Amino acid sequence: MGGELVVLKKSRNGADPLFRPEEARALAPTAESVFLGLAGDAGRFGIALDPEATKALKGRPDLFVTDLRSIAVQGLVAPEHLAPLAEAKALLAWHARHRFCANCGAATNVSQAGWKRECPSCKVEHFPRTDPVVIMLAIDGDRCLLGRAGRFVANMWSCLAGFVEPGESIEEAARRETLEEAGIVCGEVKYFRSQPWPFPMSLMIGCHARATNSDITVDREELEDARWFTRDEVALMFVGRHPEGISIPPPIAIAHHIIRAWVEEGDGVFG
Amino acid sequence: MGGELVVLKKSRNGADPLFRPEEARALAPTAESVFLGLAGDAGRFGIALDPEATKALKGRPDLFVTDLRSIAVQGLVAPEHLAPLAEAKALLAWHARHRFCANCGAATNVSQAGWKRECPSCKVEHFPRTDPVVIMLAIDGDRCLLGRAGRFVANMWSCLAGFVEPGESIEEAARRETLEEAGIVCGEVKYFRSQPWPFPMSLMIGCHARATNSDITVDREELEDARWFTRDEVALMFVGRHPEGISIPPPIAIAHHIIRAWVEEGDGVFG
Repeated sequence: MGGELVVLKKSRNGADPLFRPEEARALAPTAESVFLGLAGDAGRFGIALDPEATKALKGRPDLFVTDLRSIAVQGLVAPEHLAPLAEAKALLAWHARHRFCANCGAATNVSQAGWKRECPSCKVEHFPRTDPVVIMLAIDGDRCLLGRAGRFVANMWSCLAGFVEPGESIEEAARRETLEEAGIVCGEVKYFRSQPWPFPMSLMIGCHARATNSDITVDREELEDARWFTRDEVALMFVGRHPEGISIPPPIAIAHHIIRAWVEEGDGVFG
Repeated sequence: MGGELVVLKKSRNGADPLFRPEEARALAPTAESVFLGLAGDAGRFGIALDPEATKALKGRPDLFVTDLRSIAVQGLVAPEHLAPLAEAKALLAWHARHRFCANCGAATNVSQAGWKRECPSCKVEHFPRTDPVVIMLAIDGDRCLLGRAGRFVANMWSCLAGFVEPGESIEEAARRETLEEAGIVCGEVKYFRSQPWPFPMSLMIGCHARATNSDITVDREELEDARWFTRDEVALMFVGRHPEGISIPPPIAIAHHIIRAWVEEGDGVFG
């Protein structure tokens, strides 16, 4: 991997992310490598390549050089490779942004096969941890609240989301974010499921939440817009037939499953 | 707050954590302060005091100087003060350990009322985020798995726990930790509830998990011991009558509630 780019070998069935160590080192100058468990009985590692040299590999006919999101959405690699690729991206991005000790400012060293950095000066250990993010669907009877952020692809709407802050529970974070971004107060919050999301290193915690008011006030710094949609409207998004051409995220994103569960089960999502 | 210590005023009903700004500054040399929302219509701030000078305050007859865990367990302050105190401890501990930029090593500056640090050199922003930790009770029919870490108070046993790693979901983390620490494989994992825990800055995510084997192999680097206990035995721990004098954590800890739910509901915890 180099910056946001992942290098894959073209193969008969699509693309293959496995290189022998000497093949990987021949691609571009390398920095850290991280251990990702075993593939069969061989060790599997993620290797950081120089970002500029990686861009230059885009011209090579024997390689695919693209970003992880495209690999996942387009299904370029066999499904068993997706989790290690995501793990590699998360860990290598962490190394790239954490070469110095936050406690004393000294340059730190990699240890534990890429799962730790140690400060030679003040001896503090630094670990690659994940950021918990709540992602929730507020529900008002037969309607749900979807929002649109400026960074989304055109016409896509999704659940609201935000980082869990120090001092709050998952349920409190879901209520605070929905109130801050859309002015909607929520009562009951029900955990749905979770998913790692390596952009850069988040743990997405999916919830359904019962709205107790309906007048939306959009925080325009966070969102372009937020609206209520009926279950029938959302059902049309799943089959690509919403009258305004609105779509929701693909199945690779937990938002897809949070929304689908409500379309299929309605109030049943609260158990 | 100074290091692990919190300074409270003695009052007629116990202790009061609220000082006027000039009173707080008169206690000891101060470092960062963090905004904690409003108390009535006045701003409430957490203020970092010099740790050595704070220790010296222990002799003052008008003050309580103790650690946050003792304040919580002994109920020294009114319940509405506990969450802001925990938030202050988490944020001030973060500032103390993050004075330098992990990206470039330069000294960083506080901004956003203590909720951000900015690097004047490379311009990277650093936020105080929380570490997700899974804490789970493995259940094998009428028995549950409790472990004892060396740092626990004498005779206390609790749920197993560990950090969620990059690339895994809550459910996968609960299974991995239970397997690593006790050799127990789990199938279904059911989310229970979550709780912030400012030691130093964790989000505790409580779960119940179905064990699919029963032979325990203890990881002695992580735990002193791990054992199966029957529901009847655990019920005796709640009333302080376990024959070996074993106790479980107090209600301030989410582990208490995870264990209590199973004692009271049995298999009902899986919904």
